[in-house]
Amino acid sequence: MPTKWVYRFDEVDLAEKKMKTWEGVRALLGGKGANLAEMTRIGVPVPPGFTITTEACNAYLAKKSKFPEGMWEQTLRALKATEAASGKKFGDPKNPLLVSCRSGSKFSMPGMMDTVLNIGLDDETAQGMIALTKNERFVYDAYRRLIQMYGTVVMGLEHRPFADALEAAKAKAGTIEDSKLSSADLKELVKTFKAIVKKHAGRDFPTDPIEQLRLATEAVFRSWNGKRAVDYRNAAKIAHNLGTAVNIVTMVFGNMGDDCATGVAMTRSGNTGEKAIEGDYLTNAQGEDVVAGIRLTKPIEELAKEMPKAYNEFAKICKRLEKHYRNMQDVEFTIERGKLWMLQTRDGKRTAQAEVRIAVDMAEEKLITQKEAVLRVKPEQVDFYLHPQFDAKAKKAATKVATGLNVSPGAAVGQIAFTADLAEKWAKEEKKQVIMVRPETGPSDVHGMLAANGILTSKGGRTSHAALVARQFGKPAVVGVAALDVDTDGHKMTVGGKVYKEGDWLSIDGTTGEVFTGQVPTVVPDLSDPYLSKLLGWADKSRRLQVWANADYPRDAERARKFGAQGIGLCRTEHMFFETERLPIVQQMILAETLSDKEAAAKQRDEALAKLLPFQRLEFEGLFRAMDGLPVIIRLIDPPMHEFLPSHDSLIQEVTELRITGKDAKKLAEKEKMLAAVEMMREANPMLGLRGVRLGIHIPELTKMQVRAIIEAACKCTKDGVDVHPEIMIPLTSHVNELKVQQTALEEVAQQVMKEQGTKVAYKFGTMIEIPRAALTAGEIAEYAQFFSFGTNDLTQTTFGISRDDAEKNFLVEYTDRKILPENPFASIDEDGVGKLMAMAVKDGRKTRPNLEIGICGEHGGDPQSVWFCHKIGLNYVSCSPYRIPIARLAAAQAALGSKNEDK
Amino acid sequence: MPTKWVYRFDEVDLAEKKMKTWEGVRALLGGKGANLAEMTRIGVPVPPGFTITTEACNAYLAKKSKFPEGMWEQTLRALKATEAASGKKFGDPKNPLLVSCRSGSKFSMPGMMDTVLNIGLDDETAQGMIALTKNERFVYDAYRRLIQMYGTVVMGLEHRPFADALEAAKAKAGTIEDSKLSSADLKELVKTFKAIVKKHAGRDFPTDPIEQLRLATEAVFRSWNGKRAVDYRNAAKIAHNLGTAVNIVTMVFGNMGDDCATGVAMTRSGNTGEKAIEGDYLTNAQGEDVVAGIRLTKPIEELAKEMPKAYNEFAKICKRLEKHYRNMQDVEFTIERGKLWMLQTRDGKRTAQAEVRIAVDMAEEKLITQKEAVLRVKPEQVDFYLHPQFDAKAKKAATKVATGLNVSPGAAVGQIAFTADLAEKWAKEEKKQVIMVRPETGPSDVHGMLAANGILTSKGGRTSHAALVARQFGKPAVVGVAALDVDTDGHKMTVGGKVYKEGDWLSIDGTTGEVFTGQVPTVVPDLSDPYLSKLLGWADKSRRLQVWANADYPRDAERARKFGAQGIGLCRTEHMFFETERLPIVQQMILAETLSDKEAAAKQRDEALAKLLPFQRLEFEGLFRAMDGLPVIIRLIDPPMHEFLPSHDSLIQEVTELRITGKDAKKLAEKEKMLAAVEMMREANPMLGLRGVRLGIHIPELTKMQVRAIIEAACKCTKDGVDVHPEIMIPLTSHVNELKVQQTALEEVAQQVMKEQGTKVAYKFGTMIEIPRAALTAGEIAEYAQFFSFGTNDLTQTTFGISRDDAEKNFLVEYTDRKILPENPFASIDEDGVGKLMAMAVKDGRKTRPNLEIGICGEHGGDPQSVWFCHKIGLNYVSCSPYRIPIARLAAAQAALGSKNEDK
Repeated sequence: MPTKWVYRFDEVDLAEKKMKTWEGVRALLGGKGANLAEMTRIGVPVPPGFTITTEACNAYLAKKSKFPEGMWEQTLRALKATEAASGKKFGDPKNPLLVSCRSGSKFSMPGMMDTVLNIGLDDETAQGMIALTKNERFVYDAYRRLIQMYGTVVMGLEHRPFADALEAAKAKAGTIEDSKLSSADLKELVKTFKAIVKKHAGRDFPTDPIEQLRLATEAVFRSWNGKRAVDYRNAAKIAHNLGTAVNIVTMVFGNMGDDCATGVAMTRSGNTGEKAIEGDYLTNAQGEDVVAGIRLTKPIEELAKEMPKAYNEFAKICKRLEKHYRNMQDVEFTIERGKLWMLQTRDGKRTAQAEVRIAVDMAEEKLITQKEAVLRVKPEQVDFYLHPQFDAKAKKAATKVATGLNVSPGAAVGQIAFTADLAEKWAKEEKKQVIMVRPETGPSDVHGMLAANGILTSKGGRTSHAALVARQFGKPAVVGVAALDVDTDGHKMTVGGKVYKEGDWLSIDGTTGEVFTGQVPTVVPDLSDPYLSKLLGWADKSRRLQVWANADYPRDAERARKFGAQGIGLCRTEHMFFETERLPIVQQMILAETLSDKEAAAKQRDEALAKLLPFQRLEFEGLFRAMDGLPVIIRLIDPPMHEFLPSHDSLIQEVTELRITGKDAKKLAEKEKMLAAVEMMREANPMLGLRGVRLGIHIPELTKMQVRAIIEAACKCTKDGVDVHPEIMIPLTSHVNELKVQQTALEEVAQQVMKEQGTKVAYKFGTMIEIPRAALTAGEIAEYAQFFSFGTNDLTQTTFGISRDDAEKNFLVEYTDRKILPENPFASIDEDGVGKLMAMAVKDGRKTRPNLEIGICGEHGGDPQSVWFCHKIGLNYVSCSPYRIPIARLAAAQAALGSKNEDK
Repeated sequence: MPTKWVYRFDEVDLAEKKMKTWEGVRALLGGKGANLAEMTRIGVPVPPGFTITTEACNAYLAKKSKFPEGMWEQTLRALKATEAASGKKFGDPKNPLLVSCRSGSKFSMPGMMDTVLNIGLDDETAQGMIALTKNERFVYDAYRRLIQMYGTVVMGLEHRPFADALEAAKAKAGTIEDSKLSSADLKELVKTFKAIVKKHAGRDFPTDPIEQLRLATEAVFRSWNGKRAVDYRNAAKIAHNLGTAVNIVTMVFGNMGDDCATGVAMTRSGNTGEKAIEGDYLTNAQGEDVVAGIRLTKPIEELAKEMPKAYNEFAKICKRLEKHYRNMQDVEFTIERGKLWMLQTRDGKRTAQAEVRIAVDMAEEKLITQKEAVLRVKPEQVDFYLHPQFDAKAKKAATKVATGLNVSPGAAVGQIAFTADLAEKWAKEEKKQVIMVRPETGPSDVHGMLAANGILTSKGGRTSHAALVARQFGKPAVVGVAALDVDTDGHKMTVGGKVYKEGDWLSIDGTTGEVFTGQVPTVVPDLSDPYLSKLLGWADKSRRLQVWANADYPRDAERARKFGAQGIGLCRTEHMFFETERLPIVQQMILAETLSDKEAAAKQRDEALAKLLPFQRLEFEGLFRAMDGLPVIIRLIDPPMHEFLPSHDSLIQEVTELRITGKDAKKLAEKEKMLAAVEMMREANPMLGLRGVRLGIHIPELTKMQVRAIIEAACKCTKDGVDVHPEIMIPLTSHVNELKVQQTALEEVAQQVMKEQGTKVAYKFGTMIEIPRAALTAGEIAEYAQFFSFGTNDLTQTTFGISRDDAEKNFLVEYTDRKILPENPFASIDEDGVGKLMAMAVKDGRKTRPNLEIGICGEHGGDPQSVWFCHKIGLNYVSCSPYRIPIARLAAAQAALGSKNEDK
């Protein structure tokens, strides 16, 4: 059988091999084509038409822009069928069929590829249309639109001459609204537009409708590889080999008169998730007028009053589509002379809040199950709840300059940039905070939007380009701020009579739609949203993996517990050493190491340690109290000593200066002493140097002091009735003997302290697994360690032989840009390499000690993809920063439910 | 059955469970006891006696110095049997039995543990002995020896008072020889020695022979844990839990008159391996006089003339023992009134040359097989052939000051140290080259001998302590230099009327016995020894593993090929960049990277590369010609760029100085520019930074130039009829995509060059496996790489998370000293960790590409233990420095023959 390249909406057979899954249908017909066919199948009013498959697109692109064999013949056959269904005829001046030609790939890429409307109009059919519709104005309007789209999309001409001609026509007619142009004005414009095509393209606008269709189809195919589309796919991580389908659909017109309308809507709020149709429409207009945000749209509620019959049908269809797709739908419709046509449906884009609320509501409406609700929300989306919000007090005091539509939540602060290029340059090269300000946005602005902290536009609605993109990429955005006058050419904007220049500071609140001058301080909100709480509750019922937190201070531990932490997986004890009042004591201890008189050195060191002990004890006590009843893993000192000392470079400079000037001999002596100490501690590769357990073995008094502080604090809390579960973690182990030596020495201290205190504490000793050799010999290491905690930051560094600090400023960026590394291994666990080591360690460790507690405390612990992996290899918990806990809870649940919730 | 703690020499039953293997017999009875029993069994004349087992020793030490139950009763029973066999009675004044009490552990530890002779003498039995022997002088001599030994060994007194008393007696008698002391002198000395014991020990010398025996036995047991013994075991890597046996043997006397003699001998030369008995003896002397090197001994050849009957029997026994033990024997004998007694036999210590020659000779005599010969020589021993020798010309010109015995071959140059402690301090702490000079050496000198480059003594013979130890540890040594007067107290020595002080330079030739003043230049000899060649020839027939060489220059390659290299496993191309004339060009290239004008940068870089190309091509050509017909692996540039630039520290200092003084603005500008460049290239952890393939991807022009040079050289050689096998190696790969990108780009260059040259070259592309992730994903990497080469230096660094440079100066030393790491993983492959990764990589790599060529080019390639491991995991070759090739050849053969040749 020859390849079937073309499917009519009414002939899609779900039994066909490629169509067996919805995934397959979408892959072949694109999301839009699949939905048009599906809507047709379930009886929703859709204009007759057909889809040319993505396979045809790929074949076309592979064959250097030649249609695959049979495709065009099948297209012409489907066109015939469409003629039959619509009762019209393509190119027939008497009863002409007009069609649209639209792209549609597997994943929605709004505005990124090309569309041509009104194909089939030429001078002859235009006359036929006028005869049929008795509406010359409408026909010339459609005709001039076709020529303009054709010129720009198919022939690749600039927009500008067309826009200028339109403006000139309006100026001549003394109006600023398109709809006020008369039939004659438009007829004149058709001529002008044709002349523009002739002048800029060097050839005539084609008057053969079949030729129009063929060239439009090719243009859509080609647009798959257009720069805009490629950039978008890179940003959205969509594969480049999917191809786009082409949908040829009978034109229906929302601009045939006042009984016509066109609009877009979501079946629930894409912003809040509220269960109410939300949308915009325009009377007597064509679809792209709504999306482009050029004309001020009307909210969908008004349609109920304006065209109650059509609206009621529309509302019923919305409900039906939701039930059918089991998801909130983003629909496009047109009312042609009172008759409702659905032009598109697809799962609606939404904010994180909306995603959560819709999932929870739909589960409670029994449209979906609770598990589906849990699987539906991407863990990254929960991140939105943790986006900064403005500090309430500061916001009250701030100067509000305007309010617009709150289309993408969160607070953003930055310096104004009026072009995408500048926004990108400032953010990437100069590390500036940027708010990108535009009258409206289009596909060519996406790179700037991605680079900016937030987006502000003076035009556009809830479904404008700016709103859709901002929501998808989680950028706070306020759009449609009518009070705002943006002068991009002049690099300034005016609002409330005040002028703002490029580089001025602005603060925008995407949650409320407010715009402020200057920098308003932000805070991170708590997770009190009731829908989120409900969803996370359901998630907790599903997951096996516990979620712990990395917390160094009691206040972090308290917050973590509020967010659902089931333990502390990492308390970095050295952070306590860096505090201003303690640093000199720590330096005293370190400098002791450099004394040649061993007795004096020991004295100086022990004095310093004695001073540090009460600080450490107090903070451990706070942690234990905050985590009453839950485990607390405390890691013994990890970083190399020189981190606590002044920098070598600055010391060399100071010493050289003091030597030459010879002014301050005392200071020179001091600095020289410090320099000598720093040089003693200096290492060629500190990452691989004297730190972690190596330090503990080298200066046993230091870790002994820490264990004393831990056990003393634990005993004190126990006496106060607190349920304490301290777990002492030894970092950087690479050989079992290190553990043997260090742990044995520290166990003695623990036992000694408990004897002194007359109290028993159930403590554990364990180790980080952050060196490849530790993972490779986990079986031996588990003979001593009662728990493992993967330190995947260091494990990634050593497994890759990559120093993170160095690499992220040079070749790692190049590597991820060029896809030499599929992704940054410091963001998501490298499963093939680092993950392989982890899986080995889990297996071998548990072979030695079946009840070995294993977790992860590297930054990956809060990364959903990594959480999934941790679930898969059987960890007991992931430990992450307190703010990542909700994300980890959800990711852990999804892992347990057996889906990555990845639809790419 | 109660434990049998004591075995008579004539009752050892090889059928007994513990005795089933010779290993077992030696473990239980010690080497000496086992050999005495074995000699008894095969009919060699051995004085009657018995052995108390090593198990008894361990039980004694474990029980806090209490004999295990039944041991002493068994000892007394065995003593009775010895009385019966000898026809004498212990403690019987009429016919007293005297015995020796000697240590003897599984492995020979000469002089490290204690011995007491003449046990059984007291005032009464002495009179009985005099009556029996009619030799009062001999008896008092024996008696004073017993008291002295007893006092020092059993009671732990200083040697000094005894020695002083002996000197005083000799002075009084007007002689300098012990043998000139009269019976009356010795009788007086017995009294003096008893008084010394009473005075220093606070108690009397025990006169009960049974008490003497018991205390002596305990002293020998205790001496197992004496400091000397423990130090020796640490140095010789002998386990500490073996324990020593105690051999109680009927005394026979070499000092009963002029028909008596005592001596030690080797059945072949321990120095050269020549097949001729080699030894020293003394007439009318006791055994320790020979070993201690105090009296000037006679060569064994003279015994043939002096006591031909005894000598003939001795020579026959030597042959018999060699045949029985299938090895060269080190024997002790005593002739008592014309009757020959063998007191000990054991495998003789020997130099590397002797080991090789003996193994080869014995194989040709059919005493052993060729395979046994190959297995018998330790690979490390071959290292001796590579010890420096003096440059022949320089030696001729040098000032020879004396000649002594050439007891341990090789040339050594160093500064004189007269004490072991100083030798150790200088060598270890101050990294000085040291020659340790002593009148003679004893066990307390071993630590100094180990630290020194060479050993020089004025006294002692071929079997003196100094000679034995030097030979075992491969230190060049010259002993018995009679012309030398060493004044240790005065810290000077006199030879040929000239005085040398501590710290003066000396050069000694252990191969010839010559001593020179000053520093004579040394050279490394070639491997022309015919015995070694034969042995290595046999080894080559047995091994599966090929041996390749690491060689950067044509001259290295030529030498390597002479030593038997079957390919070049590593040519480090960057070494060519460091040469003085090229470094400025390399810097020009690097500095280009820092220019902001990209076009100018490219120009500057390309110019520099064009200059470097001919240098590289020329050297590759040389390599290919040297290795005609064999593979040559060339590694593309590996180190980070900043290694080619001046140091950051010195630049900061210079710039600071220039800024303050403000004198030389031009120089300041230059230095500032260089500093900026260095800072751009600077990394926190360069080991984990922008180097290897990362550099190749970052600056593709650099590696492209290198590949061009390689292929151009290969084409040129091919045209000249040279059989060229270039293999291009990409370093530091961690992800298969790196290889994909780099290899693809370089293959293009290779193809392009071959096209230009009109010649085909069969090249390969492959990669280092030196990053854990590469080993973990070897299956994927083998899809591109046609060969793997393990870079175990870097792989060890990353697998352990240890920076070698830093670690070897701090914690790694501590770790190996404290046995936290069983050995330095940079010396021998860490099989549990690094080795596990290697084994995985071999398995996974070959799964993808069954004919994958795999080798190792880290320093481990020349380490015998690591070679064994490489054989085990199935590598194709090991590549090592040219001088290690013979070692690797032998180790590879032994690995194939299934033995590590480890007898510890």
